[in-house]
Amino acid sequence: MDTGGIDEAIKKLTSLNCEGMYSSDFLLTWEKTDDELAAVFAVAEILRDMRRNNVSAKIFDSGLAVSIFRDNSTRTRFSFASASNLLGLALQDLDEGKSQIAHGETVRETATMVSFMAEVIGVRDDMYIGKGNAYMREVSRAVQEGYAAGILERRPTLVNLQCDIDHPTQSMADAMHLIQHFGGAERLRGKKIVMSWAYSPSYGKPLSVPQGVIGLMSRFGMEVVLAHPPGYEVMRQTREVAKENAAKGGGSFEVTHDMHEAFKGADIVYPKSWAPYAAMEKRTELYGQGDMAGITELEKELLAQNARHKDWECTETLMRETREGRALYMHCLPADISGVSCKEGEVAGSVFDLYRDALYREASYKPYVIAAMIFLSKVKHPADMLMRLLEIGRPRVR
Amino acid sequence: MDTGGIDEAIKKLTSLNCEGMYSSDFLLTWEKTDDELAAVFAVAEILRDMRRNNVSAKIFDSGLAVSIFRDNSTRTRFSFASASNLLGLALQDLDEGKSQIAHGETVRETATMVSFMAEVIGVRDDMYIGKGNAYMREVSRAVQEGYAAGILERRPTLVNLQCDIDHPTQSMADAMHLIQHFGGAERLRGKKIVMSWAYSPSYGKPLSVPQGVIGLMSRFGMEVVLAHPPGYEVMRQTREVAKENAAKGGGSFEVTHDMHEAFKGADIVYPKSWAPYAAMEKRTELYGQGDMAGITELEKELLAQNARHKDWECTETLMRETREGRALYMHCLPADISGVSCKEGEVAGSVFDLYRDALYREASYKPYVIAAMIFLSKVKHPADMLMRLLEIGRPRVR
Amino acid sequence: MDTGGIDEAIKKLTSLNCEGMYSSDFLLTWEKTDDELAAVFAVAEILRDMRRNNVSAKIFDSGLAVSIFRDNSTRTRFSFASASNLLGLALQDLDEGKSQIAHGETVRETATMVSFMAEVIGVRDDMYIGKGNAYMREVSRAVQEGYAAGILERRPTLVNLQCDIDHPTQSMADAMHLIQHFGGAERLRGKKIVMSWAYSPSYGKPLSVPQGVIGLMSRFGMEVVLAHPPGYEVMRQTREVAKENAAKGGGSFEVTHDMHEAFKGADIVYPKSWAPYAAMEKRTELYGQGDMAGITELEKELLAQNARHKDWECTETLMRETREGRALYMHCLPADISGVSCKEGEVAGSVFDLYRDALYREASYKPYVIAAMIFLSKVKHPADMLMRLLEIGRPRVR
Repeated sequence: MDTGGIDEAIKKLTSLNCEGMYSSDFLLTWEKTDDELAAVFAVAEILRDMRRNNVSAKIFDSGLAVSIFRDNSTRTRFSFASASNLLGLALQDLDEGKSQIAHGETVRETATMVSFMAEVIGVRDDMYIGKGNAYMREVSRAVQEGYAAGILERRPTLVNLQCDIDHPTQSMADAMHLIQHFGGAERLRGKKIVMSWAYSPSYGKPLSVPQGVIGLMSRFGMEVVLAHPPGYEVMRQTREVAKENAAKGGGSFEVTHDMHEAFKGADIVYPKSWAPYAAMEKRTELYGQGDMAGITELEKELLAQNARHKDWECTETLMRETREGRALYMHCLPADISGVSCKEGEVAGSVFDLYRDALYREASYKPYVIAAMIFLSKVKHPADMLMRLLEIGRPRVR
Repeated sequence: MDTGGIDEAIKKLTSLNCEGMYSSDFLLTWEKTDDELAAVFAVAEILRDMRRNNVSAKIFDSGLAVSIFRDNSTRTRFSFASASNLLGLALQDLDEGKSQIAHGETVRETATMVSFMAEVIGVRDDMYIGKGNAYMREVSRAVQEGYAAGILERRPTLVNLQCDIDHPTQSMADAMHLIQHFGGAERLRGKKIVMSWAYSPSYGKPLSVPQGVIGLMSRFGMEVVLAHPPGYEVMRQTREVAKENAAKGGGSFEVTHDMHEAFKGADIVYPKSWAPYAAMEKRTELYGQGDMAGITELEKELLAQNARHKDWECTETLMRETREGRALYMHCLPADISGVSCKEGEVAGSVFDLYRDALYREASYKPYVIAAMIFLSKVKHPADMLMRLLEIGRPRVR
Repeated sequence: MDTGGIDEAIKKLTSLNCEGMYSSDFLLTWEKTDDELAAVFAVAEILRDMRRNNVSAKIFDSGLAVSIFRDNSTRTRFSFASASNLLGLALQDLDEGKSQIAHGETVRETATMVSFMAEVIGVRDDMYIGKGNAYMREVSRAVQEGYAAGILERRPTLVNLQCDIDHPTQSMADAMHLIQHFGGAERLRGKKIVMSWAYSPSYGKPLSVPQGVIGLMSRFGMEVVLAHPPGYEVMRQTREVAKENAAKGGGSFEVTHDMHEAFKGADIVYPKSWAPYAAMEKRTELYGQGDMAGITELEKELLAQNARHKDWECTETLMRETREGRALYMHCLPADISGVSCKEGEVAGSVFDLYRDALYREASYKPYVIAAMIFLSKVKHPADMLMRLLEIGRPRVR
C-alpha cells in the first residue's frame, strides 16, 4: 500500500487546530476556522485514500445516522448514506413530509425521539427563506438539551445537507475539487472564480449553492465574482460574509450584472440558475399565510422573469472568453443542458460534454467531505484515530 | 469502566428463569411470567450500561430485522431500528399499505418470503379491533411452520410493536421508567397509578396503551386505577387480566368515572386519550363491510362524543390533588398539549413543561426494552452471552 | 460443523472456469457459460451451508448495494436485501418512480451519482418491451465509463432483478430448486419440464419468467415444452435461445397450444399467466406516445382475451396426467389460486396446497443465488475466499 499521500495528509492534519469541531455541528462554512476547513479537506482525502487502499474507516460498530430531508434529493441522500456507511453507521430516514414546517415543541420532541441511538443527523431543508437553518438550530438545541439532561447518552451532531443560507457539503466538495484540480489550496490564490446565474426553464432553485460558493471560495484568496441579472440578488448576509472573507484573505469579491464581463479571464466558472431572493422571501410569506394560489401565481411570475434572461447560458462562445478559453466549468448537478434535458438551459450541450468527467469528479468528493465532517465531530483526536485505523489495516473488502 | 451495576444486573438475570423466551415471540405481557418480564428489564439495563460504557452488544454479524408497520409511526419505528442496529441487524421495511387487512394464504406466504434471512419481525397493527394481534399470530404460525418444514433455516421471532390489545414495548418501557424512577421494582408495591382517559381533539386513538398499562402495572402490587368517562371502556379481556394480576400480586384494580377522584393521592398519573371500545368495534365492522362513508360518519360522532369531555384535562389544579402534589406524570407521546399542539387537549402546557425531561427519559427506555426482547428470544443463555460480550469488550465506537 | 458438503462444493467450484464473472454484470443467463452458471449454484450452496453452520460470509466491511426498482416488488426486494446483507453491504434504494423511462444523460449521471460507494446495483425494470434490459446496459456502460475515467474507485456490478427479456435470479433459483430436488444437475437430463401459460384474472404479467425459464432450463438436457394459447407467444429471441441451447445440450424445445398434451408425462410443470408479447409491444408503443387512454383500452382487450382461456388452469385432473401423477409443480409466486386469491386462477387450491412447502423452498434459494452472483462478480478467487472464510469461521450469530 502506498501511503505516502496519507502520511503527508495526516502530518498536515496534526498541525491543524480542529478541537472545536469535536461534538459540534457543521451548519455554515463561515462558522468554521480556516484550520477546521483544512481539517475537513485533509480527513476527506485520507478517507478516500484509505478506501482506495482497501483500508476500513469503520469507527462505529453500531449507531444510526438519521437523515431528515424536507425536500427531494437523490444525490445528497446517497452521499450521506455513503459517508455514514463508510464509518459504520446505519441510515435511518425521518420522513416528515415536506409540506409542513414543524415548530417548537414538535421539533424538540421529534429530534429527541429519533436520537436515542443516533450519532449524526443530516438535515436538508432549503425550501423557505429564514426557515431551514433555523430549523437545524432548533434540532441542535434539542439534542444538546437532551444530552445535557442525561436523556441522550451521546450527543448526535448535525450536518447541514442544504439549507436556505448555505450548502456546506456542496461548497466544500466543490472546494476540494478545486484543490485537487489545481494541486493544492495555496494554488487557488489569485484565481478568478465566477459564480454566475444562468437561465433555466424550471422554477425557483435554492439560493444556497451560490451563497455557499461565494461564502467559501472568498476564503482562499481568490477573485470571486458573483454575476446575475438585476433582481437575482442573493441574501445580503452571505454577500457580507464574502466581502469580509475577501478582505481578510487577500482576495476580492465583486458583483456584476454582466455574464460576459464576468467570464473574461476566469479560471473557474460556475453558471447555475437560482431564484431571486426577494421572490423567495415573498414565497415564504405566502406560505406562512397558507396562500397556495399566491404561490402558484408567484411561480408564474418568476418563470416569466426568468424567460427574459435566456441569454444567460454558458455557451462555447462564452467559454472562449475565459483564461486561455479553458476555465474549469463547475456545477452541482443536475444541470439544465440545452438541447438535452431542456430546450434552452444553463449550459450548452457541447460545453457540458467537455466537462462531464470533471463534473462527476466534483460530485465524487461529497461523500468523503460528509464523512470527514462526521468524523471530526465524533472523534476527539482525529489524526491519532486515522493512524490507528491505518495501523490496524482492516481490509474494507476481503 | 464501572461495571458494578452491570454485574449486579447479570447476577439478577442469572437467578431468573427465562428459558421460555428463547425462540418465542413477545406478543402480550400477560403471556410472560414475572421472571421473564424481570429478565427483559435486566437485559435492557445491561444493554444500556454497556452502550454507556462503550461496549458493543452486537451479537449478529448479519441478518435482517423486518418491520411491518400497518400504521404510521416515527417513534416506534426508530426504537425498533435502534434496537436492531444495536444488536447488529439491518432493518428492512415491509410496506404493505395500511388500507388492506391481509388474510390466510397471503399472510402465510408473505411472512415466509420476507423471512429467509430474518432474525426478528416487528409488527405494528393497531387499527382494527380483533385484527392486529390475530395478524401477528398468523405471521408467527407461518414462520414456525416454515421453520419446522426446514424452509427457514432460522425461526424469526416476533415483537408486538402495538396491536389492538396490547402495546408491550410501550408498557414495558413505561414500567422500566417507573423502576428506575422509584429505585427498583419492589418499590412500586403500594404505589397508586392512574391510567386516565383525557380529552383530545383528534379522532379515535388506539386502546392498546391503556390496556397495556393496566395489564402490566397490575403485576407490581400497585393500586391501579383506570379512569374514564362512561362509554370509554377498554376491552373486557384486559380488565380481567388486570383484576387477576392484582389479586395474584397483592395490589388492586379499580375503574372509576371520576378523574378528580382518581388523581387523589396518586403517585403516578397517565392521562391519555383513547377511543371507546364499542366505537372501535363498530368501526371494524364498518370496515369489514367496506362502508367508508359509515366510518366517516362514526368519526364525526366520536369527535362529538369526545367534545363532551373537554374537562378531562390534566391541569395543574388536578396535579395538586396527587400525592404531595407531585405525582409522576407519564405519557407515551406525542401528547396533545393545550395551547401548544392544540387549543384544548390532554394536558396543560405548564404540566407538560414540568415533566418534559421525565417524559423523554420514559421514551428513552423503549429501544433498550425492544433490544432486550430480541436478545432474549435469540440467545439461549443470555447471562453467559452478556458476560462474554463484556469480557470481549469490543468498543462500540472506536 | 459438518462441512462435508461444503468441501465437495468448493472442490467443484475450483474446477470451474468462472474468471469471466469477476467485475462483470449478470444480465441474461444465456450470456453466461455453463461453468459460470455452475459456479453460481456452487457458491449459492456453499453460502447456504455456511449460514446453516453459523459461519459469516461477510466479505464487505462497508459498501452499498443500490437497488433500482421500477416496479413494485416485495419478494425480490427482500431477496436482494438479504443477499446484500449476508455479504456485508447496506441496501440503499434509488426511488426513481416508475412512471418515467429515463434516458441517456439522466441515466448516465444518476448511475454515476449513486455509485461512488456502491459495490453492486440491482435493477428491476420489466414494464416495457425493449426498455428494461436496455436500461440496465445503459447503467452498466455509465459505471464502466466512470470507473475507466477514475471517477469511481470501484466498478459496481449489476444484477438483473427482472427485465423485459429475462428474470435470471428467478430462473436460477428455480434451477437450483430442481437440482436440489432431483439430486444434481446431471439428474435433470431427459426430464420433461412444461412452462405453461395459465389463466389469471389480472392484467398483463411480465414475460420474463417464461422467457427466463425456457432460456435456462433448455441447457440441462431437459425436454422443455412451452405451452400457451395462440396469441401468447413470448419474444422470438428467447425461443431462439431455447432452441439453440437444446440443440447444444442434447435436450429439446417445443411449443404447443395444448395444455393437456403438454402435461402428459411431465416431470415438472410451471403454469403461470403472462401477457401476449404483441400486446406488450403495443403497450410500449402507446406508452411512448403517452397514450394512457389507449393503454387502458388495451388492458380491457387483454382481460377479455385472457377470459377466453379460463380452462388453462392447473387442476388435480391435469396433474394426474403428469409422470406418475406427481410432477413437481413450480411457481415464482404469488400465484393466482382459484377460490383463494381469486375466483378462477392459475392453479386449483388443492394443487397449490400440496406443493406449498416445495414452492416456499423454491423461493428460498433466491437470496443465495443473488448473493452468489454478487460474490462471483466481486471476488477474484471465489474458491480461495470461501475457504478462507471457513477457516476464519467467524460466527454469524454469536
